[in-house]
Amino acid sequence: MTEAKGDFTKQKLWGGRFTGQTDPLMHEFNQCLRYDQRMYLADVRGSIAYSKALLKVGILTQHEANEIERGLGEVAKEWETKTFAPEPDDEDIHTANERRLSEIVGKDIGGKLHTGRSRNDQVATDLRLWLLEEASTIKKYLKDLITVMVDRAEKEVDVLMPGYTHLQRAQPIRWSHLLLSHAFSFNSDLTRLSALLPRISVLPLGCGALAGNPFGVDRDFLAKELGFDSVAENSLYGTGDRDFIVEFLQWGASTMGHVSRMAEDLIIYSTAEFGFVQLSDAYSTGSSMMPQKKNPDSLELLRGKSGRVFGQMSGFMMSLKGLPSTYNKDLQECQEPLFDCVDTLSASLRIFEGVVGTLAINKKKMEGALTMDMLATDLADYLVRKGVPFRETHHVSGKAVALAEATSVSISQLTLEQYLTLNPKFEQDVFADVFDFEKSVEKRNAIGGPSREMVARQVRVLRKSVSDN
Amino acid sequence: MTEAKGDFTKQKLWGGRFTGQTDPLMHEFNQCLRYDQRMYLADVRGSIAYSKALLKVGILTQHEANEIERGLGEVAKEWETKTFAPEPDDEDIHTANERRLSEIVGKDIGGKLHTGRSRNDQVATDLRLWLLEEASTIKKYLKDLITVMVDRAEKEVDVLMPGYTHLQRAQPIRWSHLLLSHAFSFNSDLTRLSALLPRISVLPLGCGALAGNPFGVDRDFLAKELGFDSVAENSLYGTGDRDFIVEFLQWGASTMGHVSRMAEDLIIYSTAEFGFVQLSDAYSTGSSMMPQKKNPDSLELLRGKSGRVFGQMSGFMMSLKGLPSTYNKDLQECQEPLFDCVDTLSASLRIFEGVVGTLAINKKKMEGALTMDMLATDLADYLVRKGVPFRETHHVSGKAVALAEATSVSISQLTLEQYLTLNPKFEQDVFADVFDFEKSVEKRNAIGGPSREMVARQVRVLRKSVSDN
Amino acid sequence: MTEAKGDFTKQKLWGGRFTGQTDPLMHEFNQCLRYDQRMYLADVRGSIAYSKALLKVGILTQHEANEIERGLGEVAKEWETKTFAPEPDDEDIHTANERRLSEIVGKDIGGKLHTGRSRNDQVATDLRLWLLEEASTIKKYLKDLITVMVDRAEKEVDVLMPGYTHLQRAQPIRWSHLLLSHAFSFNSDLTRLSALLPRISVLPLGCGALAGNPFGVDRDFLAKELGFDSVAENSLYGTGDRDFIVEFLQWGASTMGHVSRMAEDLIIYSTAEFGFVQLSDAYSTGSSMMPQKKNPDSLELLRGKSGRVFGQMSGFMMSLKGLPSTYNKDLQECQEPLFDCVDTLSASLRIFEGVVGTLAINKKKMEGALTMDMLATDLADYLVRKGVPFRETHHVSGKAVALAEATSVSISQLTLEQYLTLNPKFEQDVFADVFDFEKSVEKRNAIGGPSREMVARQVRVLRKSVSDN
Amino acid sequence: MTEAKGDFTKQKLWGGRFTGQTDPLMHEFNQCLRYDQRMYLADVRGSIAYSKALLKVGILTQHEANEIERGLGEVAKEWETKTFAPEPDDEDIHTANERRLSEIVGKDIGGKLHTGRSRNDQVATDLRLWLLEEASTIKKYLKDLITVMVDRAEKEVDVLMPGYTHLQRAQPIRWSHLLLSHAFSFNSDLTRLSALLPRISVLPLGCGALAGNPFGVDRDFLAKELGFDSVAENSLYGTGDRDFIVEFLQWGASTMGHVSRMAEDLIIYSTAEFGFVQLSDAYSTGSSMMPQKKNPDSLELLRGKSGRVFGQMSGFMMSLKGLPSTYNKDLQECQEPLFDCVDTLSASLRIFEGVVGTLAINKKKMEGALTMDMLATDLADYLVRKGVPFRETHHVSGKAVALAEATSVSISQLTLEQYLTLNPKFEQDVFADVFDFEKSVEKRNAIGGPSREMVARQVRVLRKSVSDN
Repeated sequence: MTEAKGDFTKQKLWGGRFTGQTDPLMHEFNQCLRYDQRMYLADVRGSIAYSKALLKVGILTQHEANEIERGLGEVAKEWETKTFAPEPDDEDIHTANERRLSEIVGKDIGGKLHTGRSRNDQVATDLRLWLLEEASTIKKYLKDLITVMVDRAEKEVDVLMPGYTHLQRAQPIRWSHLLLSHAFSFNSDLTRLSALLPRISVLPLGCGALAGNPFGVDRDFLAKELGFDSVAENSLYGTGDRDFIVEFLQWGASTMGHVSRMAEDLIIYSTAEFGFVQLSDAYSTGSSMMPQKKNPDSLELLRGKSGRVFGQMSGFMMSLKGLPSTYNKDLQECQEPLFDCVDTLSASLRIFEGVVGTLAINKKKMEGALTMDMLATDLADYLVRKGVPFRETHHVSGKAVALAEATSVSISQLTLEQYLTLNPKFEQDVFADVFDFEKSVEKRNAIGGPSREMVARQVRVLRKSVSDN
Repeated sequence: MTEAKGDFTKQKLWGGRFTGQTDPLMHEFNQCLRYDQRMYLADVRGSIAYSKALLKVGILTQHEANEIERGLGEVAKEWETKTFAPEPDDEDIHTANERRLSEIVGKDIGGKLHTGRSRNDQVATDLRLWLLEEASTIKKYLKDLITVMVDRAEKEVDVLMPGYTHLQRAQPIRWSHLLLSHAFSFNSDLTRLSALLPRISVLPLGCGALAGNPFGVDRDFLAKELGFDSVAENSLYGTGDRDFIVEFLQWGASTMGHVSRMAEDLIIYSTAEFGFVQLSDAYSTGSSMMPQKKNPDSLELLRGKSGRVFGQMSGFMMSLKGLPSTYNKDLQECQEPLFDCVDTLSASLRIFEGVVGTLAINKKKMEGALTMDMLATDLADYLVRKGVPFRETHHVSGKAVALAEATSVSISQLTLEQYLTLNPKFEQDVFADVFDFEKSVEKRNAIGGPSREMVARQVRVLRKSVSDN
Repeated sequence: MTEAKGDFTKQKLWGGRFTGQTDPLMHEFNQCLRYDQRMYLADVRGSIAYSKALLKVGILTQHEANEIERGLGEVAKEWETKTFAPEPDDEDIHTANERRLSEIVGKDIGGKLHTGRSRNDQVATDLRLWLLEEASTIKKYLKDLITVMVDRAEKEVDVLMPGYTHLQRAQPIRWSHLLLSHAFSFNSDLTRLSALLPRISVLPLGCGALAGNPFGVDRDFLAKELGFDSVAENSLYGTGDRDFIVEFLQWGASTMGHVSRMAEDLIIYSTAEFGFVQLSDAYSTGSSMMPQKKNPDSLELLRGKSGRVFGQMSGFMMSLKGLPSTYNKDLQECQEPLFDCVDTLSASLRIFEGVVGTLAINKKKMEGALTMDMLATDLADYLVRKGVPFRETHHVSGKAVALAEATSVSISQLTLEQYLTLNPKFEQDVFADVFDFEKSVEKRNAIGGPSREMVARQVRVLRKSVSDN
Repeated sequence: MTEAKGDFTKQKLWGGRFTGQTDPLMHEFNQCLRYDQRMYLADVRGSIAYSKALLKVGILTQHEANEIERGLGEVAKEWETKTFAPEPDDEDIHTANERRLSEIVGKDIGGKLHTGRSRNDQVATDLRLWLLEEASTIKKYLKDLITVMVDRAEKEVDVLMPGYTHLQRAQPIRWSHLLLSHAFSFNSDLTRLSALLPRISVLPLGCGALAGNPFGVDRDFLAKELGFDSVAENSLYGTGDRDFIVEFLQWGASTMGHVSRMAEDLIIYSTAEFGFVQLSDAYSTGSSMMPQKKNPDSLELLRGKSGRVFGQMSGFMMSLKGLPSTYNKDLQECQEPLFDCVDTLSASLRIFEGVVGTLAINKKKMEGALTMDMLATDLADYLVRKGVPFRETHHVSGKAVALAEATSVSISQLTLEQYLTLNPKFEQDVFADVFDFEKSVEKRNAIGGPSREMVARQVRVLRKSVSDN
């Protein structure tokens, strides 16, 4: 096959009318094989499908189509076994694969594959195929993460802890309730991911460089062959659109935003001062200087990487801004952010699953952090149940808190006499009714509340979503 | 009712145990009534629904619930007629409405409304209700914009023009095809908007401050009453989540990104050098210095505002980053970006509809910009049809272009003899087959192509989407 | 003067050759007087200076220049006293001021002011003048903030606390040292602000619409008159550049980033679990539902507003991206972000000064959080001083920590015998030398350390910077 | 030396008290040697300087210091010659270099190097040292770019072209004037880069992990040894600050923003419709499908990469947002954005220099695009010189433009009679005075204008700045 390297397969594909030399720096600047090679399989699959479409319209003979399929199979194997040998002029995966194909099957056959096709529709097809695959893997990781949270929540439903707002102790909740609140954020990511897939699954192949395909290739056939839901209905749009990447990057940035918020909770809970959770050694590191340190590096990296994915999203959105329609080379800048986002999400979700699945909780510390003033709302609610308007009971309860503070006791230690000075509706039952954390939590039994029943409901809802999406 | 202003309605709602004075600057910093008052109706509607729920669980009597409904109706009317008189301590729309309600119906009734509710679930409910309303209006504007584009495309299907890639003349297309390519971007925004609405339509009311509702309010009833699709299943999530805003801002930034790209096309097409389109005076402005100028200010503003919405999105995503779960005051920073995004989208889509609907096109200029070298691909395809591999025909065609350039003629003016020096398969029919712009466009008749048939198909697809979404 | 409203002052300035009507929505979209009127004084000052320059080149007589100065003085007074009455066609502050001037002094004189000038150089001049003024005020607020931190640090130098890395207790430091670390961040903002002012202080006036001034106005005179450091040396650059705004927004976003990091520290330190600091009531708020709550709202708003300013910066950077050179209407989108950034910075720095100046610290809690394992590095250093390589002493110290943990004592409670099993160089002096927090801090006496001497040095360095900048 | 690999050099440096196993995924997540190894030389230089400082305070003997310098020299050589063999536990360049050093010089000596030092102050030092070096190279590239623009401007000063605002023809200018306007943007980047270097050049070494150095190392000596301008005055700040990176990324994003704007101009000017410039083949590419295409890929990539650098900046700013003070692992996320920004800037500036230095201009096309209506302002100015107020002359000139349009002639073809109907001050000299492009340009001779004299002045100013900065 060496002679196949002959006259035209080795030159730049578009070299026909060019006479000047490319600046070597420019060659490097323009070269993207180093990163787009990861789409080699999508590229091969797209080309095989396209050769079948060319066969259907008579551009290829059966033999030629067979040869192309065989040749591309070999190309894919070379990539898989890391034996593919790039040439200097292989500027991208499309050029590289076609060059190698022509070496394998001869240029007379290989040279027919690109008929009616352009790298513009080819790269858009590769990106979408590749991303559909990756998105499906990421979806699995996301479900695993939700599941580990749901499992823990179910198992540790007995553990009470302070619920915080503004990072100030607010009302008692269950540890499971907190875990599940984060699980619902990830569940929202899950449903959103499902909802955006149809906008990735749109076939560009057959759009040509911009103006469509002049050989009447059957694009519905191509879509079916490659597993796309639908076909790009306008060739300019099909080649120039990168919204599917923007939307995925936005999704990724939001999902990592959720990671950052849960990481923040856990980092704070793992301080010596809170002491609610302790990361497993598998996700901690130490200090090169301070021998006693055990740092939640995994969580900090996860939190930090929410910035990284946001950066990839913002960067590419800016690259797109104000571009004329159809293909412009600026679009090349979609690839590295997308690849980095996919890698970061994949790793982050798995790491986070490991962190959440292995962290130890300290029930004693959590419950020890519950204080009677966190029942001040329950105290107000007690009076509400005796018919006092809430705005007034809220005020009374505030006075009880102030009185307790002034006399250095907790509100559960004020006497009934003291309570009666605040409002005549107080009775002896206030002490048993109000000052019990478990009771307080169980009273919150409307949908969405932290009671056992509602926690169990949440577990059911999430398990169903994981199985439905 | 003046006495109702008495002991507690005039003080800060949470003033009970506070003794220091608020720094006036801090008061101003914290005050949001100046912008959140636009949600007054959502706030009133939410409160009326909540009072009905309190009635159902016996916290309110029928009389009290009626009074609250009547009072809130008056409050809404005051806002509507711009007669609502804010007090200095009305720090937000919730406080203002409740303060005024208590003045109207008396504090003994008004003071019961907030039972079991917090501003945390209240504000989340208001924001979602308000946004659902606005999103529906924006969807209508988006459909109007798509429709005006589709209408033009249908009417002006005869007009040919150069299709560009890299802003270089590439292949002939129809003006309608270009218009529709942008319409498909907006159509993608339309389907995406429909797909995200269910994530806005989740009811937070009944989640309390963070830990749910202790009076067993019927949240399914509340959701039905207010028109929500579903109920937040976890109270921490329900009060602390602002993803519905992030996702809407991301959508808005993407949609404006499409505006920026189409505006760029039109700005370039309206230069003296291109001269393809001319904006109506209604969307142009002049210069304070240069009397001859007519500037496409509308398009430039639209393009610029894609940055603005991106900024609102980025800013709020950063505000959210790394926040502990549940409500933190940082969340207040969601409102102004959301309001600005909604206003910008609403205005931009309508302006753009006006611009697109009224611009004049110059058929002569468009068709005059078609040059024979744009048929070089058709020339290569001609040989493909004669059995030559595309890679070779591409090369041959490149040589024809170079030869034409060297001899200062167009490729349609090369002789058959000259063509035969490039490849023996050329025949006399090359001239009639290849060098005709209309034929070239009509050959591109696979789905997505610019042929008349395919343009008509696009028109159908878009009209259906506008009517289905 | 009513007749002056006659034929041309009331129409759009560029209305000469336009025949169509402006869409009312477009009129609104294009209108910016509602926000650019805050630059009225800069606009008036710029116009007065320009009229003097026109006098110098003979375009105006002395009488005309005097009249213009008088008229503009009245215009400014009307704005100042809020008696300026905008007309519907006053689309921006430049148009409004000139229209009003012509009413006051007559169109024969007022109509000469814009000679050789364009709104393009005028608005760029106004923005720079206005921003120079505001930046100087913001600098003052920044100095006040640094000063309040330095004052506290000096006064409270005795208080020890844990230093954290990864939010884990690391080594003992002084509270002052922590305060000063943030002060150095703000000091870096201060020097950076001083360094960027020369890039704001560049005069555009005299650049015309794009191509310079044809009447030979003396731009050095204009610069001197208005207090600019230098003159824009290229008219296209002078009218089309908005980098001074980008750089200021970037500065603002970084400065607010520092605010967000210090706010985060203080929010965490004000949790019940840490309990190191308590915000004054003047900067706290309560809950509408939970009577016991005292929330650090000011700090959360400050942290949240770091996102807001970042959003203004990102948004405008995107608006600028890919614009053709010189003036494009997209540039209008610089104003609202800039104004919002200035307002946010001004308020935030003052609020933060108030927060920092009034917060109470809890020495007992801070010092109570110091634990002996935080001296593990000192233990390693002890052996270093006896000649053992650090990598080994670090290891030994780690073993001591593990041994103490295993036997449920602190490392200061291990016996000398136990220490000797870890390394033979341990001696009795280890207990007095190592296990003393004050000693540990004082040992760190190299520049930048937390010792009293080094804290005093930091105070001096910062005071000098505040007085030099 | 194999035995030196003995007991502790091979384990994770902080492994002393850890018993669990690291998740392999976490190991990978945490590993940064693959990218931070590019700072190997800065790391070695910092360590050599530190060993000298340890010698000065008696921690090391002269022999030990010599050995360390020798060993580190070998380490550097191994990196340089690509013979350095990383071990699996070399998680970063600091660990790798120290591990290898201990193999070379023995652990008894190598193990002393880290005394009083932490990776926290080490990595901050390496980053600053490395960036100072790179920034100086980038500055050179920036000067080269400015110089090539200035050289062209000087040489091609005769060429006139339309100046555009809003992409509409506005007034005649010189091509040189346009080139120089972009040069002034880059010059602003140059002065800004010079102004930010002092904020990079601050020494962190000697700050320890957070709390300073307990061995009294002479940090002024270290700064001098390593070429830093100043010393971090607070150890918490010194280790936790990454503003120098943020500021550099902001600078990079702004500079690339200028690249994007000039690229936009040139992309538009290289369309067939404008035809003002043609890129050299060295910076163009072709199409895989369309043989006639010659695309300005270099410019599009450059424009697109403005998004990339913006993304790196935004991403890291988000990673930083709301972090507690001092070192958190999130800070690791500064490195990849910084490296990518430096690489992108370095390549982009050089490519752009090549593009600008080799592009061909088409004088005929440029001057052919000048039209008489671009002199409408000159026409108005003509009347100004005859004493008519500008507002009136602007109006008159607008009417002339309309009249010419209505009668299908240019404004230079209207008769004096026609002019006199518009204003009685017109005289015969209007034709010679006004309708000459060269004269129009030369009249704009105030500072900043496009006249020959002012272009020459700009050339001088820029050359001086390049030589001074």
